[in-house]
Amino acid sequence: MRPNFKKLQLSALNRKSLKEFKQTPKMGIMLLLDNIRSAHNVGSIFRSSDAFAVEHIFLTGITPIPEANFEIQKTALGAEKSVNWTQVDSEEALAMFRQNGYKIYTIEQAENSQNLADFNLNILEKYVFVLGNEVTGVSEFWMENCDGCLEIEQFGTKHSLNVSVTAGVLLYSVSRSIKN
Amino acid sequence: MRPNFKKLQLSALNRKSLKEFKQTPKMGIMLLLDNIRSAHNVGSIFRSSDAFAVEHIFLTGITPIPEANFEIQKTALGAEKSVNWTQVDSEEALAMFRQNGYKIYTIEQAENSQNLADFNLNILEKYVFVLGNEVTGVSEFWMENCDGCLEIEQFGTKHSLNVSVTAGVLLYSVSRSIKN
Repeated sequence: MRPNFKKLQLSALNRKSLKEFKQTPKMGIMLLLDNIRSAHNVGSIFRSSDAFAVEHIFLTGITPIPEANFEIQKTALGAEKSVNWTQVDSEEALAMFRQNGYKIYTIEQAENSQNLADFNLNILEKYVFVLGNEVTGVSEFWMENCDGCLEIEQFGTKHSLNVSVTAGVLLYSVSRSIKN
Repeated sequence: MRPNFKKLQLSALNRKSLKEFKQTPKMGIMLLLDNIRSAHNVGSIFRSSDAFAVEHIFLTGITPIPEANFEIQKTALGAEKSVNWTQVDSEEALAMFRQNGYKIYTIEQAENSQNLADFNLNILEKYVFVLGNEVTGVSEFWMENCDGCLEIEQFGTKHSLNVSVTAGVLLYSVSRSIKN
């Protein structure tokens, strides 16, 4: 017999409170949003980052910040409060990442890239994943200073995904990739 | 030595022409957009559907259609021309899906849902995946008439993803799930 697929009420979703979420151990996944133009995309990435328990979001260049940006707040639906974020200068961020031994991976279509689906997260490491501008992609600065480049395999005529979709696919894939 | 991660030029992406894409065998994956409100989301889903070689998109209810909708065209970046689509009535669509033996899966947070990550596509079947409204989710009609319900496991305070992000994660996951 076919089971009943009754939609869950909000109360049944076991959603964490803001305090519980802040105290939840994260998976060592951080994002760096490198010159992302659209507040809509930034808000959507915050929302996905809440869903996949991202530890921190770094914002560089022209990327709009949640404070006082109504469009981000409208799209993030409160995730800009649950996910920690900092606006940073790229060079200072790189120095800090190196000092802390974080692994830096760009998400881009590039020579020598690794298929995202073949990438496994090492639970003992911390990772910064760099997502780039809607038109020009990840900047040369991060392409030259990354430890690796991940690519989402595509089969179509366009070979481009919206950057917030890319972020969602990335977070889903890496959060599933931890070997227990 | 660290390899060079040179970004690929458009010409190096092996993008299919529109004619080649139309002739490419697809994976038997179809989407049904059930009362999706935002043209921005519809456009983004078309773009992801091109990337993951979706066979057909069905549009029901209030879902805006690509024709004469500038917002969809702007977001889809031409994918509304490469991906086949039809506007349908839900009851007629259901009858047609049943007649053709398509499997119908809703994407929703529901009782008896299956974790998307545990779902494997059977290459011998054809699938219609139903994505729902931004606020109210998949309609009761499709919840009552689906063969299964898939859910994206989440870890945050919100338990909601943007519907175009959900579509991207779904397409990535099912396109990787085919057992060779």
